[in-house]
Amino acid sequence: MNRQFEPKDPDFKQRVTRSFDEQAVMKTLNARLVAVEPGEIQIEIPYQPSLTQQDGFIHAGISSTIMDSACGYAAFTLMPSEARVLTIEFKINLLAPAAGERFYAHGRVRKPGRSVFVSEGEFYAHADGEDKLVATMVGTLMAVYSR
Amino acid sequence: MNRQFEPKDPDFKQRVTRSFDEQAVMKTLNARLVAVEPGEIQIEIPYQPSLTQQDGFIHAGISSTIMDSACGYAAFTLMPSEARVLTIEFKINLLAPAAGERFYAHGRVRKPGRSVFVSEGEFYAHADGEDKLVATMVGTLMAVYSR
Amino acid sequence: MNRQFEPKDPDFKQRVTRSFDEQAVMKTLNARLVAVEPGEIQIEIPYQPSLTQQDGFIHAGISSTIMDSACGYAAFTLMPSEARVLTIEFKINLLAPAAGERFYAHGRVRKPGRSVFVSEGEFYAHADGEDKLVATMVGTLMAVYSR
Amino acid sequence: MNRQFEPKDPDFKQRVTRSFDEQAVMKTLNARLVAVEPGEIQIEIPYQPSLTQQDGFIHAGISSTIMDSACGYAAFTLMPSEARVLTIEFKINLLAPAAGERFYAHGRVRKPGRSVFVSEGEFYAHADGEDKLVATMVGTLMAVYSR
Repeated sequence: MNRQFEPKDPDFKQRVTRSFDEQAVMKTLNARLVAVEPGEIQIEIPYQPSLTQQDGFIHAGISSTIMDSACGYAAFTLMPSEARVLTIEFKINLLAPAAGERFYAHGRVRKPGRSVFVSEGEFYAHADGEDKLVATMVGTLMAVYSR
Repeated sequence: MNRQFEPKDPDFKQRVTRSFDEQAVMKTLNARLVAVEPGEIQIEIPYQPSLTQQDGFIHAGISSTIMDSACGYAAFTLMPSEARVLTIEFKINLLAPAAGERFYAHGRVRKPGRSVFVSEGEFYAHADGEDKLVATMVGTLMAVYSR
Repeated sequence: MNRQFEPKDPDFKQRVTRSFDEQAVMKTLNARLVAVEPGEIQIEIPYQPSLTQQDGFIHAGISSTIMDSACGYAAFTLMPSEARVLTIEFKINLLAPAAGERFYAHGRVRKPGRSVFVSEGEFYAHADGEDKLVATMVGTLMAVYSR
Repeated sequence: MNRQFEPKDPDFKQRVTRSFDEQAVMKTLNARLVAVEPGEIQIEIPYQPSLTQQDGFIHAGISSTIMDSACGYAAFTLMPSEARVLTIEFKINLLAPAAGERFYAHGRVRKPGRSVFVSEGEFYAHADGEDKLVATMVGTLMAVYSR
């Protein structure tokens, strides 16, 4: 996607970082926010045996957690400073087992709107020097304004 | 749903319980398997500040994790003993903030199949003696046979 | 679902019927609106060879068309008279081939909201005196107000 | 996507074209198959008042019908000659009203598999010399072998 997004709030990076730091679950999962660009977010987590399902792979719900935050914050970068972001719904497709040393979620805005945003997420497993796509997400986010 | 499901494996409860115990992430999230019936599963977690998003509610990805396990094991109860269960995809809708003292996920098989199963999940928040529906899931599961 | 929905517009039946009559595609598909209740809609179509895919079954997209209208109008019954209804997204699961003499879509509101509604749809094939569930839908609808 | 797909059946174009011609609904909708490449399909329809919803835009279900065929046949190009293709589920997001002179659906395989394929679809409206993305789809397809 070569379209450029214009953030409405010049301090979007600070705003996203602050909110991310308030997501206690990100700390619990040892997730790190590694990139914050207009309409685009990257979050990383290391492999952790404590987050696995019965076959030793990262549980699909944990992949969802990371991708949902990436998709949500991607939308949040484009919202005005007074908005909060809310996930309305998302769908994930699991393409391969989440096996690897560490994992990256990329979230990108596909369609910004006044109140409704659509973001897409990808979840990559990094192993033996290679990245492999293991899951994809499509999510609908909403800008919510306090009254 | 008044249709009765007939499990192919009489020991389905043991098989599900054993697999659940192997999901390390369930221990990490303090999730408990509270009901295992043919085509139906209930999993419970207490409220934990360590699992919250920026507003202090349980993160949607954590709700997904619990619902995905509930939907997957609901399908697993109906699979033959030599099958493994794999989530292909799921979609969740977030209806209300996940605020409460504890939370229940119900997973139910909507359509069993030879290889493809469709399950539906509901996520309830329990607060002040009342249960409130906070999220729903539809998921597609697959029975996988080792070759 | 035993919860009762309270329509905001006492003339919701007229409003839904008028809008349905304006959906030219419903006429093209020979679809009939057979029930309009608060939060609930039923639409019927006969089997038509002109609507089939390569195996002679009703094409999944046509089932979607009928279910989407059923889900959207189910939400529309609960909206105030000045609102328009817009589908934001939907997901369908195909459970069985859409084979039969005629087909019914039921749309029901799962969660009403100020602006965002979640509806669920079911698509039944009627053959040899029996109804068979062939597809399910979950959709997110929005109440849009002209400014 | 710079990955190259290798079709298993050298006659995949003929096989897809023949199956498309058997989808009576494509004729009914005046849809034309305009591109068949390994893992990629393009289908076009003109604007038709007979396919509209209450505001005069193409009904979301009709967009779904075209995208579903594009996604399904994209997967079908990569399947062996003895396989049939079946849609298990799909999700669409509606990004803008489907207003225009004609419409294109692009379907692309995101992940091929032995039995399960994931495809992505886009629906563009062409108006005043420009293409506008109006909807996206993610679908899961299955290769089915007669026994």
